[in-house]
Amino acid sequence: LRTGFPEVIWGLGKTPEQIAQIMQVMGKRSPVVMATRIEPAVAEQLEEQIPKLIYYPIARICALKTNEIPRMGGGVISILTAGTADLPVAEEAAITAQLCGFSVQRLWDVGVAGIHRLLSHRELINQADVLIVVAGMEGALPSVVAGMADCPVIGVPTSIGYGASFGGIAPLLTMLNSCAAGVGVVNIDNGFGAAILAGQILRTAQRLQRKE
Amino acid sequence: LRTGFPEVIWGLGKTPEQIAQIMQVMGKRSPVVMATRIEPAVAEQLEEQIPKLIYYPIARICALKTNEIPRMGGGVISILTAGTADLPVAEEAAITAQLCGFSVQRLWDVGVAGIHRLLSHRELINQADVLIVVAGMEGALPSVVAGMADCPVIGVPTSIGYGASFGGIAPLLTMLNSCAAGVGVVNIDNGFGAAILAGQILRTAQRLQRKE
Amino acid sequence: LRTGFPEVIWGLGKTPEQIAQIMQVMGKRSPVVMATRIEPAVAEQLEEQIPKLIYYPIARICALKTNEIPRMGGGVISILTAGTADLPVAEEAAITAQLCGFSVQRLWDVGVAGIHRLLSHRELINQADVLIVVAGMEGALPSVVAGMADCPVIGVPTSIGYGASFGGIAPLLTMLNSCAAGVGVVNIDNGFGAAILAGQILRTAQRLQRKE
Amino acid sequence: LRTGFPEVIWGLGKTPEQIAQIMQVMGKRSPVVMATRIEPAVAEQLEEQIPKLIYYPIARICALKTNEIPRMGGGVISILTAGTADLPVAEEAAITAQLCGFSVQRLWDVGVAGIHRLLSHRELINQADVLIVVAGMEGALPSVVAGMADCPVIGVPTSIGYGASFGGIAPLLTMLNSCAAGVGVVNIDNGFGAAILAGQILRTAQRLQRKE
Amino acid sequence: LRTGFPEVIWGLGKTPEQIAQIMQVMGKRSPVVMATRIEPAVAEQLEEQIPKLIYYPIARICALKTNEIPRMGGGVISILTAGTADLPVAEEAAITAQLCGFSVQRLWDVGVAGIHRLLSHRELINQADVLIVVAGMEGALPSVVAGMADCPVIGVPTSIGYGASFGGIAPLLTMLNSCAAGVGVVNIDNGFGAAILAGQILRTAQRLQRKE
Amino acid sequence: LRTGFPEVIWGLGKTPEQIAQIMQVMGKRSPVVMATRIEPAVAEQLEEQIPKLIYYPIARICALKTNEIPRMGGGVISILTAGTADLPVAEEAAITAQLCGFSVQRLWDVGVAGIHRLLSHRELINQADVLIVVAGMEGALPSVVAGMADCPVIGVPTSIGYGASFGGIAPLLTMLNSCAAGVGVVNIDNGFGAAILAGQILRTAQRLQRKE
Amino acid sequence: LRTGFPEVIWGLGKTPEQIAQIMQVMGKRSPVVMATRIEPAVAEQLEEQIPKLIYYPIARICALKTNEIPRMGGGVISILTAGTADLPVAEEAAITAQLCGFSVQRLWDVGVAGIHRLLSHRELINQADVLIVVAGMEGALPSVVAGMADCPVIGVPTSIGYGASFGGIAPLLTMLNSCAAGVGVVNIDNGFGAAILAGQILRTAQRLQRKE
Amino acid sequence: LRTGFPEVIWGLGKTPEQIAQIMQVMGKRSPVVMATRIEPAVAEQLEEQIPKLIYYPIARICALKTNEIPRMGGGVISILTAGTADLPVAEEAAITAQLCGFSVQRLWDVGVAGIHRLLSHRELINQADVLIVVAGMEGALPSVVAGMADCPVIGVPTSIGYGASFGGIAPLLTMLNSCAAGVGVVNIDNGFGAAILAGQILRTAQRLQRKE
Ligand SMILES: Nc1ncnc2c1ncn2[C@@H]1O[C@H](COP(=O)(O)O)[C@@H](O)[C@H]1O
Ligand SMILES: Nc1ncnc2c1ncn2[C@@H]1O[C@H](COP(=O)(O)O)[C@@H](O)[C@H]1O
Ligand SMILES: Nc1ncnc2c1ncn2[C@@H]1O[C@H](COP(=O)(O)O)[C@@H](O)[C@H]1O
Ligand SMILES: Nc1ncnc2c1ncn2[C@@H]1O[C@H](COP(=O)(O)O)[C@@H](O)[C@H]1O
Ligand SMILES: [Mg+2]
Ligand SMILES: [Mg+2]
Ligand SMILES: [Mg+2]
Ligand SMILES: [Mg+2]
Ligand SMILES: [Mg+2]
Ligand SMILES: [Mg+2]
Ligand SMILES: [Mg+2]
Ligand SMILES: [Mg+2]
Repeated sequence: LRTGFPEVIWGLGKTPEQIAQIMQVMGKRSPVVMATRIEPAVAEQLEEQIPKLIYYPIARICALKTNEIPRMGGGVISILTAGTADLPVAEEAAITAQLCGFSVQRLWDVGVAGIHRLLSHRELINQADVLIVVAGMEGALPSVVAGMADCPVIGVPTSIGYGASFGGIAPLLTMLNSCAAGVGVVNIDNGFGAAILAGQILRTAQRLQRKE
Repeated sequence: LRTGFPEVIWGLGKTPEQIAQIMQVMGKRSPVVMATRIEPAVAEQLEEQIPKLIYYPIARICALKTNEIPRMGGGVISILTAGTADLPVAEEAAITAQLCGFSVQRLWDVGVAGIHRLLSHRELINQADVLIVVAGMEGALPSVVAGMADCPVIGVPTSIGYGASFGGIAPLLTMLNSCAAGVGVVNIDNGFGAAILAGQILRTAQRLQRKE
Repeated sequence: LRTGFPEVIWGLGKTPEQIAQIMQVMGKRSPVVMATRIEPAVAEQLEEQIPKLIYYPIARICALKTNEIPRMGGGVISILTAGTADLPVAEEAAITAQLCGFSVQRLWDVGVAGIHRLLSHRELINQADVLIVVAGMEGALPSVVAGMADCPVIGVPTSIGYGASFGGIAPLLTMLNSCAAGVGVVNIDNGFGAAILAGQILRTAQRLQRKE
Repeated sequence: LRTGFPEVIWGLGKTPEQIAQIMQVMGKRSPVVMATRIEPAVAEQLEEQIPKLIYYPIARICALKTNEIPRMGGGVISILTAGTADLPVAEEAAITAQLCGFSVQRLWDVGVAGIHRLLSHRELINQADVLIVVAGMEGALPSVVAGMADCPVIGVPTSIGYGASFGGIAPLLTMLNSCAAGVGVVNIDNGFGAAILAGQILRTAQRLQRKE
Repeated sequence: LRTGFPEVIWGLGKTPEQIAQIMQVMGKRSPVVMATRIEPAVAEQLEEQIPKLIYYPIARICALKTNEIPRMGGGVISILTAGTADLPVAEEAAITAQLCGFSVQRLWDVGVAGIHRLLSHRELINQADVLIVVAGMEGALPSVVAGMADCPVIGVPTSIGYGASFGGIAPLLTMLNSCAAGVGVVNIDNGFGAAILAGQILRTAQRLQRKE
Repeated sequence: LRTGFPEVIWGLGKTPEQIAQIMQVMGKRSPVVMATRIEPAVAEQLEEQIPKLIYYPIARICALKTNEIPRMGGGVISILTAGTADLPVAEEAAITAQLCGFSVQRLWDVGVAGIHRLLSHRELINQADVLIVVAGMEGALPSVVAGMADCPVIGVPTSIGYGASFGGIAPLLTMLNSCAAGVGVVNIDNGFGAAILAGQILRTAQRLQRKE
Repeated sequence: LRTGFPEVIWGLGKTPEQIAQIMQVMGKRSPVVMATRIEPAVAEQLEEQIPKLIYYPIARICALKTNEIPRMGGGVISILTAGTADLPVAEEAAITAQLCGFSVQRLWDVGVAGIHRLLSHRELINQADVLIVVAGMEGALPSVVAGMADCPVIGVPTSIGYGASFGGIAPLLTMLNSCAAGVGVVNIDNGFGAAILAGQILRTAQRLQRKE
Repeated sequence: LRTGFPEVIWGLGKTPEQIAQIMQVMGKRSPVVMATRIEPAVAEQLEEQIPKLIYYPIARICALKTNEIPRMGGGVISILTAGTADLPVAEEAAITAQLCGFSVQRLWDVGVAGIHRLLSHRELINQADVLIVVAGMEGALPSVVAGMADCPVIGVPTSIGYGASFGGIAPLLTMLNSCAAGVGVVNIDNGFGAAILAGQILRTAQRLQRKE
């Protein structure tokens, strides 16, 4: 990644030894190193080798901060989920965003089956800078939110569901076909990627400001 | 079909001659005969052969009524669409329901991208007897409606859309995965089947009343 | 859900602690709380924490009844299965319906490969108020039943089968393409959703009666 | 093909000139030459060049018989369809079988939505030698027939239907997952292949007889 | 199934207790009872409860023979496999056929990548009565065999392979699209169904003989 | 849409009369009205009814501007295509962005098969504010660009290609799986949606500036 | 492309004017310019503008040769087809190869359903330098050929077929799963790509020779 | 396989006993015998029975060399990976190639998200004899490499990724649709097949040399 973002290791398909080694090497040249998709058993092994390691169990992220993370001023990343089962993906987004230095606002469990709960947060959505909307099953939340919001919406389909959700295909297609324009979609369960995209959006804002 | 429903001809893949002939034969034993999926050019040919034929161009339905349709008392079938492009499917449902003797209430263009328009019809939805909800693209409307309503909801995915809507697969999956329970789904573009199912639901109500 | 239905927790992807806690909170404001998709090992843990819990092992449902379930008068939900392997899904429907206060009639193992067995129950099907038809493999039963019945039919495809059943896609497509009109389809293995839809159908009947 | 079967040309993707030329060459060495998938306009062009050509418009087959077709004794091929729209495929099977010298029995429009009509032909099915069962939409007919019959059943899915029939995938999967054993499936719309397989079955019977 | 075939239990999704009980009940009225898809551990449990049980480990079939299986005279079922990994499916077919009283000829490992090995068995194929051809990966064997044989060919796709074989979809499509006519296809891994179909084919031969 | 964006009509499935009428109604209350997916023949009919209409033939967009479009200061939307066949989609994005008042920079035909051409525009990519990357066939361009850029990247898969591109599925999956983070994907051929998302990103920048 | 290969224009989705213009520009700097996927009507228009243009109607290729094509010595590209309907794709490969200066050997109509015809060309296959094998429907030919040959085999699936061939998916999967190793697969109907790959293979041979 | 290549056993679905036995039989007639897809636990069992066995743990290959492998002169097989998670597949290719006597050059972790790293190896790619390019997730590397190289490129999609990579479908489609010609694709994760194809390419070079 680029200046200002942490170094990132994709934890899937790597042994704890490999992850620990890469983290330590990277930790020498970067203030923050993070690894995603770390199951608790792997995290325990990593913690033995890297004492200063921090583990975020819901997000399944490990981080090594050798320096204070520089705060990215201006703008908040708001993260919404449709259900509680979508939390691990949403927390992957939230922790990633925070490790990048962004402020995060969380709003869980506002799925479209209970539209009134969502509407009670109308203000928050109207005034958001950038929205990450995480939803499994039918994945309709980003469409409704994009219709209410006046900012970029990042849709994250999750593999939560069964039967005809086909491991996240159903919400993925829903989000790609959103009748409300202004939704960008990332891979199924890719909370990490959503956070980086949201971060890039806020950084663009900051860079444009500096240009002027 | 059974007592009380019209005779129905599925127009796809039949010649105008075949349709006209079947209609005339059936018209002798049934007060209402209807044919679905009739394009305007075919309808014109049919009208030449069957002078009393009525054509509903948006619904693409032809009907021959030799008798007054007996009114099915008690209960209304409410039909909603997400967009105007869903109208042909919704009208197929509406005309079918009317030809079966049911009262129909239409509410077009209340898709989830403009949730306020849908919410302004809250009363109608709350008090509905049975709802047919027609939507293409991401097909999220039935989920939201089922969360607001307290009656059976029939979801009709349409082939309206492009790209990753895959001819209606996207809204079909959305509706099957609805996080709000109480939604029964019919085939893509199957307005006819939705109307028959809604009709069966109201008839069950009437039959139960008679039992008591 | 709405007035008159129990509170429901979707058990998949929740820890026993989470489920127990939500049940106890909900149990304070609702006469019946139920959780679906509860495996035996989880049920045992729940029973330790909630002594009055009832577990239905075939249906994989846990329920907490703080009050007598109010009987929903008028109308019976008839549930059919094609094979014995479809039982868990059918029982999920049956127990859900009973926990909602509805009467249930069960008819197992009447698949279309032995049509005579199905035909021997002709009367039951002819006189049903609402039918839930559960089938895996080729999923042809709802089509045949809908041709015999004169009431709404809810088709529930199951993931029973192998090879080209593709985890329930085969019976799902079969049911969506039913040549007999009047079939509403729910998600693969979604016995719960079928019961709620059937319940809504009977409730509509009752509401219409009250209106008159 | 082998001794005893006609020479066959697959008409798709060949010019009328190519088809006419191949037919005339083959007609010199074989008593029967047939071409499948011949649209009316192509047939007209062929008839100009080959005066003795016979065209079967529903089956879309052209045949050139330079000799009487030798009658294949013993056994009848029974062909059933679910609906009238399946006729072209069923006739492709029927005419192919007849051009091979087999006796054919036709039974149209006995789909499972009206199971009584099928049951009224119980005797015919019980006593069949080999059955070709042609069905589109949900394609449930072969399962039901195979449960009643005591002979090989050949299932032919057709592309008749719309939406979630996906051009014949739905009935194809249905037939492959038939819960009644003894069903062999051929390609979507492949009436020709079904007839050849049925013919091979009857020929096996005759060869076994000769062996003894 | 019908007269002359054993009673069959589909072992998937049944507990050993259920299987044992059904076998014992059926064993009272049928000379042969068999159960398919029985893993070794389940077979051991069954053998404790039913001492006379026979287990075929490769075929994963259990059988209970209370009487000598009546020999079905006339005709042999020839079974071919493309590779050794296809053996369990081929043996499911072979043992089923034998338990039905048919003679079986086995020819393993004659896949198309080494066409000379297949050609060295030309005679066997030319003179077969009915052929079951079992193949995974690309599943090309039935096409080649059907081009050489002059009898019905039953294609059994297997789930052997990886990547783009998609659990058997690749050989399934291959067999359905066979350019050699006369191939009937059964479900992926369905050796049992192939044997029943082959048995029905030989029985038709016998019945036709009796008619004369 | 919201304040500051034009009114938009989705032209697919609407008659020229309908489009013309909606445009005229909307033109009364909005400085810019646009319609997408307008084929040349339809545009001609519209131009007859609305004299001031402007047609962009490559983008297939019609626009009616009753007022000068207010310029959105600060930031440019850079649009890249992999090939020339992707132009209609890219121009849909470009014209939409311009009608919203944004500045647009176009860079056509920089697909990954000729990586040097892309690299010669390194500076442009490095300094972009927001990038829309349009690609069909294998759709690899957004991955490469996102690895070079330090701003949000919007990937637009197109239906350009044949065979295994499956109407745009291939580039869609490529973009969703981008190994470079920071890519948001829209529907196949959805140039319009990409422009709105890019516009929202620049507007967020402007709003954040105002907040300070 | 690189030194030694002609300049190539992909004709799909370009107007005749665009193609003519690009050809003329390229013709100034390259001895051979070719355009693929040119339908006859387009070719006629091109011929009017570019008098020296050569059109290969079966291959649907247009070529402009301003110089003699330099002969690529050493090695022949052998091209096989399963059926006659595969000819356009095979000729696209053949003409492309020839325009690149390679020698081509054609062998049409040697599909696996008539294995003896293929075997009669054993010598040709055994001694080939590189083989392009073109097949639709079940696409089994490359597997059989790769088992016989001792050289690289390039499999080209075609969209020839119907029903479950799914526009070429069936032969594509067959070729990817070939149980004979040494098969490289290109896109459905991509005769052009196969020829370039074959050309690269022969060029590698030549370059290695030069190195020594 | 043919003269000059080792004997190969596909390890999937075989017991250690079966593999050991086949290896020992083959080892008597072939200087090199290898088995693919051997997990560590199986390798340990094999090593007990065959003392001279060599196990390559990353490649998951076992080999038995009874003689020195004859060196295949002339030409090197260059193998590239996009990420480190692709290593097992790349090593399967590398070890297979080496066991066939070819020289191998490895270049790991040059995925397109960091294009500069790839470009720094420009020379290696420009001068390669044959390239095997291994990539998962979006699989874009072969397209970029084929645009830079002037030799045959073999694309190997891997199942590395999650969500919409669908077990390797995403990179498979990407490679089949490569806009750079000259890419031959093998099955998902099929490093073995890629090596054999690369070996055949170099052997063709050698054979052509001998011819002259
Ligand atoms: N959860 C995740 N999903 C998608 N990509 C990720 C994830 N975590 C890390 N990455 C990406 O993977 C790259 C590191 O991959 P690796 O070198 O295999 O550790 C980083 O640059 C990230 O862009
Ligand atoms: N087996 C099931 N299948 C589908 N939906 C269910 C099931 N069980 C419960 N639900 C729904 O899930 C909701 C509760 O989800 P949660 O808040 O995640 O516990 C309820 O309102 C039900 O509508
Ligand atoms: N391996 C198998 N594959 C497909 N169907 C089978 C198999 N084994 C048994 N069957 C069928 O399953 C039926 C018995 O199912 P069940 O009543 O669930 O035991 C039998 O009538 C057989 O037709
Ligand atoms: N990893 C692999 N992927 C694909 N094919 C393989 C692999 N390993 C071995 N093979 C092929 O499998 C054949 C041996 O299969 P088998 O006779 O089942 O051991 C060899 O001739 C190889 O062509
Ligand atoms: Mg918005
Ligand atoms: Mg509701
Ligand atoms: Mg009915
Ligand atoms: Mg039968
Ligand atoms: Mg044959
Ligand atoms: Mg970037
Ligand atoms: Mg070979
Ligand atoms: Mg190249």
